[in-house]
Amino acid sequence: MMSDVNASPPESKRRGRRPAGQDTKTALLDAARAVFGESGYEGATVRAIATRAGVDAAMVNHWFGGKENLFAQAVLHLPFDPTQLIASFLDGDIDGLGERIVRNFLTVWDATDGGVFPALIRSIAGHDLAAQALRELFMNKVFAQLAAKIDVDQQDLRATLCASQMVGMGIVRYVAKFEPLASADHDTVIRAVAPNLQRYLTGSLD
Amino acid sequence: MMSDVNASPPESKRRGRRPAGQDTKTALLDAARAVFGESGYEGATVRAIATRAGVDAAMVNHWFGGKENLFAQAVLHLPFDPTQLIASFLDGDIDGLGERIVRNFLTVWDATDGGVFPALIRSIAGHDLAAQALRELFMNKVFAQLAAKIDVDQQDLRATLCASQMVGMGIVRYVAKFEPLASADHDTVIRAVAPNLQRYLTGSLD
Repeated sequence: MMSDVNASPPESKRRGRRPAGQDTKTALLDAARAVFGESGYEGATVRAIATRAGVDAAMVNHWFGGKENLFAQAVLHLPFDPTQLIASFLDGDIDGLGERIVRNFLTVWDATDGGVFPALIRSIAGHDLAAQALRELFMNKVFAQLAAKIDVDQQDLRATLCASQMVGMGIVRYVAKFEPLASADHDTVIRAVAPNLQRYLTGSLD
Repeated sequence: MMSDVNASPPESKRRGRRPAGQDTKTALLDAARAVFGESGYEGATVRAIATRAGVDAAMVNHWFGGKENLFAQAVLHLPFDPTQLIASFLDGDIDGLGERIVRNFLTVWDATDGGVFPALIRSIAGHDLAAQALRELFMNKVFAQLAAKIDVDQQDLRATLCASQMVGMGIVRYVAKFEPLASADHDTVIRAVAPNLQRYLTGSLD
């Protein structure tokens, strides 16, 4: 699949018309998420990312201008449309909100080994933007927006409580891997976690 | 307080009789937890830790033989007696379990800026033992032991669920600092989080 890399040298200027180059770029973004997720920002090397992608290390500079910008594009860029996501959470019975949220997180994260989440957690010491991106991802783009659309008191506190549960689930399931939660099937996790998330969103906090 | 450091040179052999040396050692352990908590294992330097402790960098090698062993003693060493902690959780009405746990975590963590927790999270990419220590701290020494002493089904799953909530609360309050949960007073957090922890421990998960 990556054998056409040599046909897309750094000096090429016709990027828009080169699917081979796009393949390289996509492969580097995927490899970057995996390597940053395993080693964190400080521990990840350009060489390791390029090797994982099956391309020459020079391709990282060619397509991204270095590790910093590759991190920004691979890890800090939101991998979904927040407006659409929140609409899908709100599409249905308000009492099913917790379940729809947990199911969505599990479906997306399980399919992508936690998506950008392990890379953010493992880079939180080595890159200033990682903690900020974590707040952006869980609070500003998702739970604060969601809570603002529900007719409840203490919307910001509810949003941070939801974030605490989902960040914790992310760590336990995808980063530090505490069993049996790390390997539990979706229905088990949803039955266990959804009612707690539902209470944070619509229950009494007093 | 640290002005007596020069009276306790590396070549001294009378360690047991030198309170000045013990002061240096304690200052280095405190400084190590703070610096590992801010920068993680990879980002923390021996020099930064020594500077924070107000002692010469040579003292790190003298007392701990290097960064690796200082990390082990400052961060991986359990800062409490698990048996005593679990007994204190179980000392009272079973319905007050969630409240006692959340109150204890908040009291200990708030007094110590999260204790070893931020250092473990920020070192999870740079030090193999950090994830293992996180499992040890939350699961093997606390929630698995606790759940085993309660007459409930699915004890291991309940333990990991509790861990997910408390790890998440630790990240949100002490590491990534999502407001308003990061600054909320104890009673607000306890009223919000304790019922969810209680459900994970003694409620129905089906």
